[in-house]
Amino acid sequence: MIIVDPLQSGGTPPDYVVETLKSYLKGYPICLHCPGDVHRIRKPNIAKLIEEDLPNFIGADVVRLTHGAREAAFLSLFSLYKHHIREKKDKAPVVILDGNTHYSMILATERSLLKPILTKVSGPLEYKVMKEDFENKIESVKEKYKKEPLALIVTYPDGKYGNFPDLEKISKIAKENDVYLIVNAAYSVGRLPFDMKEFDADIVVCSAHKSMACVGPLGVLGMRGDVSKIILKKSAYMDKELELLGCTSRGLSTLCLLYVFPYLKKRVREWDKKVEIANYFLKEAEEKLGFQLQGERPHQHDLLNFKTETLYKISQKTDRYYLYRELKKRGIIGIKPGITKVVKLSTYLLEKKEVDFLINSFADLIEKYSTR
Amino acid sequence: MIIVDPLQSGGTPPDYVVETLKSYLKGYPICLHCPGDVHRIRKPNIAKLIEEDLPNFIGADVVRLTHGAREAAFLSLFSLYKHHIREKKDKAPVVILDGNTHYSMILATERSLLKPILTKVSGPLEYKVMKEDFENKIESVKEKYKKEPLALIVTYPDGKYGNFPDLEKISKIAKENDVYLIVNAAYSVGRLPFDMKEFDADIVVCSAHKSMACVGPLGVLGMRGDVSKIILKKSAYMDKELELLGCTSRGLSTLCLLYVFPYLKKRVREWDKKVEIANYFLKEAEEKLGFQLQGERPHQHDLLNFKTETLYKISQKTDRYYLYRELKKRGIIGIKPGITKVVKLSTYLLEKKEVDFLINSFADLIEKYSTR
Repeated sequence: MIIVDPLQSGGTPPDYVVETLKSYLKGYPICLHCPGDVHRIRKPNIAKLIEEDLPNFIGADVVRLTHGAREAAFLSLFSLYKHHIREKKDKAPVVILDGNTHYSMILATERSLLKPILTKVSGPLEYKVMKEDFENKIESVKEKYKKEPLALIVTYPDGKYGNFPDLEKISKIAKENDVYLIVNAAYSVGRLPFDMKEFDADIVVCSAHKSMACVGPLGVLGMRGDVSKIILKKSAYMDKELELLGCTSRGLSTLCLLYVFPYLKKRVREWDKKVEIANYFLKEAEEKLGFQLQGERPHQHDLLNFKTETLYKISQKTDRYYLYRELKKRGIIGIKPGITKVVKLSTYLLEKKEVDFLINSFADLIEKYSTR
Repeated sequence: MIIVDPLQSGGTPPDYVVETLKSYLKGYPICLHCPGDVHRIRKPNIAKLIEEDLPNFIGADVVRLTHGAREAAFLSLFSLYKHHIREKKDKAPVVILDGNTHYSMILATERSLLKPILTKVSGPLEYKVMKEDFENKIESVKEKYKKEPLALIVTYPDGKYGNFPDLEKISKIAKENDVYLIVNAAYSVGRLPFDMKEFDADIVVCSAHKSMACVGPLGVLGMRGDVSKIILKKSAYMDKELELLGCTSRGLSTLCLLYVFPYLKKRVREWDKKVEIANYFLKEAEEKLGFQLQGERPHQHDLLNFKTETLYKISQKTDRYYLYRELKKRGIIGIKPGITKVVKLSTYLLEKKEVDFLINSFADLIEKYSTR
């Protein structure tokens, strides 16, 4: 089986972890040794994972587990809303997001009683986030509210095109304007080396099931500086972190991350090879299949988005499910059934010979239907 | 291995499900066929589970998956806060909870910017929820705010003593006062037959990893009547349910509930036998071990809480971990390490002969240390 599903490719645990997890499928065993917080469990050593390994891995001061990147973004934003908008009233209830943002970041903003504003994106075919528009949007918020917006959220890279916004520059804009910088690293942490310190980010939200080789749902929230005091505020009634409802990911996913961590540390060092493979597929797909990349060049991520006019034309003569069927027949899984006009895929799990097989399979089925 | 951990006993999937899940440990496969909402996926048939099976199972009109019971309670309360406190301003920002409530319900209330008020509980050794105090507490809220409180939350049964509050009576009080009734059924749905309609509850929150034989984290939110329109309000920006952040439990736990469901339907019919076993253990433990039940009599649940003075006295002569060690040696898992004064356990997974073994093991180790 060749998996090219962008949602699945980075979330597949290696075989040694799958074997370990099998013995944990019976129930809910990690709570037995819990002293009151999942991040303090020493048997198995989840405490070390959360207090040492993950902070080092992403350059955070403090880390917590969540149910996913969107849940991490929501709990951060909601606690910042309470602190800055409801109590201190020192920020405008607005969050500025890059124009390629993941939809869940908009929902996390809206759910937190904040208004999302999106920055501009360049036109086809690159669809690049225009960093300078962050400044414009901040200015317009300041004009309207006489206060800075609460936060910037940058999805790095986005999940549609695999484009990397210029985080360094956007971070400078955030710092100059005293606005929190939140990075949605759902498609980077666990795939490529990532260090919050490098970008001076306050918050990073990661997805263990998208890019950290974990069964889901599981996310990682990284925090730097004082922001963790706001986000991890204790309940007024008991010694528990309020926004985490006392405990977040209680179960198998957390064990998975624990066991998968040594593998993750290794695999991010191989990132250049993954980008090479993606670019090899890109070159072949454009030359041999007539696909047209949507997204930035040179391409820096395994997420690839193509306009596939040839495939669409065939669907008009046959039916829209032919592509899914034909690929499945060849053991290729991950292109959404019914989709032919724009194909989004990830080459993350592929070696060169599998890319060749994939290209040949597409060529083969295009030929099959074109000569009909 | 004999598992008596209350957190684990009801959350252990049967072997046939464990076998199925093994093939799903590789990643995140359910999203491939997702039309935009996890509850509409037809391959595998999660849509049927959420739209037909679960509503029938708990007597709900509408069901959604969540990350757990506490997350279900939070998202319900927070959406009701937005609707009734922030927008309509027609309710007092107060939630009344039974005095045996689970701590997470207090956190869900506080996190939703609402004030928790707890009702009285009778003294030792029964610790029964005093239903009449709900009326007193509602009256005092009305006096102070000139409005009804937003909701009552009843944990049914509580997770400490396994006591069942008089839900029928409390429901009447809720309806008479025009207050939402939320039932925390984390220790009932999946263990015993439960029907929201019977109690005229507006909302029920259930825990799949606590009582529905599922790997965690996973919860079920059941709604009746108009309340689902408030809770499942769509985003102003897109066709997604806002409080669910567009999607909740995306992964293995959801598949687990799908495959485990036929087993759940069967097992709740065996509840009387489970209560019988619990009472058999109770009788033996009081007669042969000198344990003293804390909780209501006759006891109606497999959760049992004992004062265990004998075990505590031994710990004073040896060390506090002896009990955990001695039980583990005998293959008995689930009493928290270091705890000897009050023992909380569940007999849910036990047959009569295992109860005998458990009683004999306790008797044996008491004798071993008493004669030292």
